[in-house]
Amino acid sequence: MSKEITPRQQDYAQWYNDLIIKSGLADYSAVRGCMVIKPYGFALWERMRDELDRMFKDTGHQNAYFPLFIPKSFLSREAAHVEGFAKECAVVTHYRLKNDPGGAGVIVDPEAKLEEELIVRPTSETIIWNAYKDWIKSYRDLPLLINQWANVVRWEMRTRLFLRTSEFLWQEGHTAHATAPEAEAEARQMLAVYADFAERYMALPVVRGVKSPAERFAGAVDTYCIEALMQDGKALQAGTSHFLGQNFAKAFDVQFLTRENKLEHVWATSWGVSTRLVGALVMAHSDDEGLVLPPLLAPLQVVIVPIWKGAEQKALIDAKADEISAELKKAGIRVKYDDSDNVRPGWKFAEYEMKGVPVRIALGARDLEQNVAEVARRDTREKMSLSLDNLAARIKDLLDDIQQQIYRAASTYREEHITPADDFDTFRKILDEKGGFVSAHWDGTAETETRIKELTKATIRCIPLDNPPEEGKCILSGKPSRERVLFARAY
Amino acid sequence: MSKEITPRQQDYAQWYNDLIIKSGLADYSAVRGCMVIKPYGFALWERMRDELDRMFKDTGHQNAYFPLFIPKSFLSREAAHVEGFAKECAVVTHYRLKNDPGGAGVIVDPEAKLEEELIVRPTSETIIWNAYKDWIKSYRDLPLLINQWANVVRWEMRTRLFLRTSEFLWQEGHTAHATAPEAEAEARQMLAVYADFAERYMALPVVRGVKSPAERFAGAVDTYCIEALMQDGKALQAGTSHFLGQNFAKAFDVQFLTRENKLEHVWATSWGVSTRLVGALVMAHSDDEGLVLPPLLAPLQVVIVPIWKGAEQKALIDAKADEISAELKKAGIRVKYDDSDNVRPGWKFAEYEMKGVPVRIALGARDLEQNVAEVARRDTREKMSLSLDNLAARIKDLLDDIQQQIYRAASTYREEHITPADDFDTFRKILDEKGGFVSAHWDGTAETETRIKELTKATIRCIPLDNPPEEGKCILSGKPSRERVLFARAY
Ligand SMILES: [Zn+2]
Ligand SMILES: [Zn+2]
Repeated sequence: MSKEITPRQQDYAQWYNDLIIKSGLADYSAVRGCMVIKPYGFALWERMRDELDRMFKDTGHQNAYFPLFIPKSFLSREAAHVEGFAKECAVVTHYRLKNDPGGAGVIVDPEAKLEEELIVRPTSETIIWNAYKDWIKSYRDLPLLINQWANVVRWEMRTRLFLRTSEFLWQEGHTAHATAPEAEAEARQMLAVYADFAERYMALPVVRGVKSPAERFAGAVDTYCIEALMQDGKALQAGTSHFLGQNFAKAFDVQFLTRENKLEHVWATSWGVSTRLVGALVMAHSDDEGLVLPPLLAPLQVVIVPIWKGAEQKALIDAKADEISAELKKAGIRVKYDDSDNVRPGWKFAEYEMKGVPVRIALGARDLEQNVAEVARRDTREKMSLSLDNLAARIKDLLDDIQQQIYRAASTYREEHITPADDFDTFRKILDEKGGFVSAHWDGTAETETRIKELTKATIRCIPLDNPPEEGKCILSGKPSRERVLFARAY
Repeated sequence: MSKEITPRQQDYAQWYNDLIIKSGLADYSAVRGCMVIKPYGFALWERMRDELDRMFKDTGHQNAYFPLFIPKSFLSREAAHVEGFAKECAVVTHYRLKNDPGGAGVIVDPEAKLEEELIVRPTSETIIWNAYKDWIKSYRDLPLLINQWANVVRWEMRTRLFLRTSEFLWQEGHTAHATAPEAEAEARQMLAVYADFAERYMALPVVRGVKSPAERFAGAVDTYCIEALMQDGKALQAGTSHFLGQNFAKAFDVQFLTRENKLEHVWATSWGVSTRLVGALVMAHSDDEGLVLPPLLAPLQVVIVPIWKGAEQKALIDAKADEISAELKKAGIRVKYDDSDNVRPGWKFAEYEMKGVPVRIALGARDLEQNVAEVARRDTREKMSLSLDNLAARIKDLLDDIQQQIYRAASTYREEHITPADDFDTFRKILDEKGGFVSAHWDGTAETETRIKELTKATIRCIPLDNPPEEGKCILSGKPSRERVLFARAY
């Protein structure tokens, strides 16, 4: 393991890239803009996915699967959707290859041209609402609470592993309701699920808020979001939940018979999080030595490394390590004993620090004599000598403590980086020198929002849900404002 | 629930289609050849996927994720692969849409043409082996045991829900090994995993075999397969596992340093099963009343239906049903209490028969007085009166019994439908009148195989792995043969 990660202070973007690749989370692929999620990265995503899936099911949702392809004409059905949605899509125009008569492999068969082009889904509202038209007839069919785990494609020229790739994995919930308040409540409930997941599992404090009209999802009436802060002071949108009103129901003519036997259009939500969360997790907690993973999501929670001279010592340590492994496994802890003999213990220490394994147990011959082990925690890099008696319980406590400590550290950083600004010079200075969220008055117009973005590269991340009302003046226009909003430069 | 399924005797293909749609497993979509997997169908697939995933992990495999797109030129790298592999692929030629200047929605932006077309993966050997080139340097990197759960696309003109669709979901294992015997053993191990899954979970007896050269996967040295028999006497390939030799390693130049410090090409396997298994499950066990699902995979194992008159009875039954539900859930049984009041009990009975719920418990006021419930099993449609005392244990036994009974019924049918034939007239007669597998001598040539297919539409399903050697004469050519092979008409 050569620990050649660029330090964060030197180049944060390069640090992130080095880290993702050297820790084995992901790599670039032969296809521009698409990444390979390697086994370690996928194991992390699997843990996130499984917890989220459980939370979705606990709130009454079912999974389903809709086609990868969307007929091009569907995208034009909802006016705001097609206007606002990025048009950088992968377009399928042909359905057959044939052997090149010249012998140069295969070529596209020009005779196999599709009558209507198919778009590789960038999001699935249109194809799903087209199906819902057949599924929803009466109020008894509502609410319809469906989620899909899928890959989606949005063509990207400038990509960044996990954070922005042409193909990514995500889940998209698409629900249908009889009334507006029910759909609103669903959109807010799913935002709460995302926030809970981010904070409890990812150890990532988030601001719950609603987007300004300009930052809304194309086709939404309201877009709720959770916003997190990265160590370089930039914000990252970690999840969104949209109240879609009747827009898609009207575009696809989905009506239902009410209890009173009247035909009405259905109310909708959609909500999603993606493999971007892996990037957020890495950026929020890791350091110059490698990943720092919260124990609840770490694919491996504990690694045991033997330190030995000669076969006799090795045999003794092996026996003890197996005993400890069994004890930890029984306690539900994900543990690995790494007794590979082709690298030295110091190399292994560095390797597992790079991979962010929360706890390392080093076992040497002298430790065994004293019935102790040297235990190191990844987050603070503290070392302690722990008795081997009742070790599983101690390790379990330690893992809990690490989970909380990682959250606390991120929370402290976040709290220190929400800064109020009451004039534009201060606003700009905070963005340039300190970073983080800036809490400021805004006059509520898209013009001002755009102008601030042009001048500072900062966008309105959200209007926090728990915002206290406060009379004030817009930092740019000086016009009256009734609450502060959060600005930041963002990923 | 209108039980309008076409009977099997009348039209087996229509029965299957009716059943899939009316039981809510899947439906057609707006995209030709692509289906929507509805929540009930997806819940079934999820249970299959989770069991398989556990089995893959238990045999040392890890999941990863590779790009959806494959550069067109990759397909030509392995000669047999491109020659033999179906060229009915979805081809991405452009990466952007734009607003139609004429106002008719969106059009493909002709300026956004890809330099090299991308193929939506029909299978991932090429893109994965291109990545393995960077991952594998030394014998210490081997074996590499990776699986991917993904969607794939193979353009189909004539589709059938679950059995043949343009897009389907599957898993594809791709492993790399230092030696040929290790790779061979892996290919056989994964075949054993598939067979075990089919028989223990799907209650589907399968023949384990190896394909004739003509039926091999394009690029494989040997293709192992499991073959199942459907109720109409046609065979269905339920899974394949390929020993790929060094073909892909050579095509993508993947070499490793051996222990002896020599450079050698890596040995490979790939193996996969897909949502086709859902179709096989349905076809193998279901009847004219609806689905028959093996309890181990049924999304819902027990449904409780109340039969009441008036609120007073209802309250008593509700209380008892909640008690029973809690008891069953505690025993790990997936149970639902359906006390909806908009349809009659008889309608519910038919509905849950259609959905193949293995056990139905009807609870009436008189039952409660006598401390019994009327329990009906879906597979044999037998009814029995069971005491409410210790009901969970009785239901658990019943579910076990149903699982075994479904397997036994399918096995009996399968055993009755493996028929030897020693001359071509008999061979043809069995295929036409009885169906099933025909065990016959074949001279080992592709010419004879093709001719038999032309004459009878039957293909060699496999050469069974446990085949006893037997001297004989080819049923078509009369040339000498040393073992029988299994022919059948197939899905
Ligand atoms: Zn309408
Ligand atoms: Zn080579």
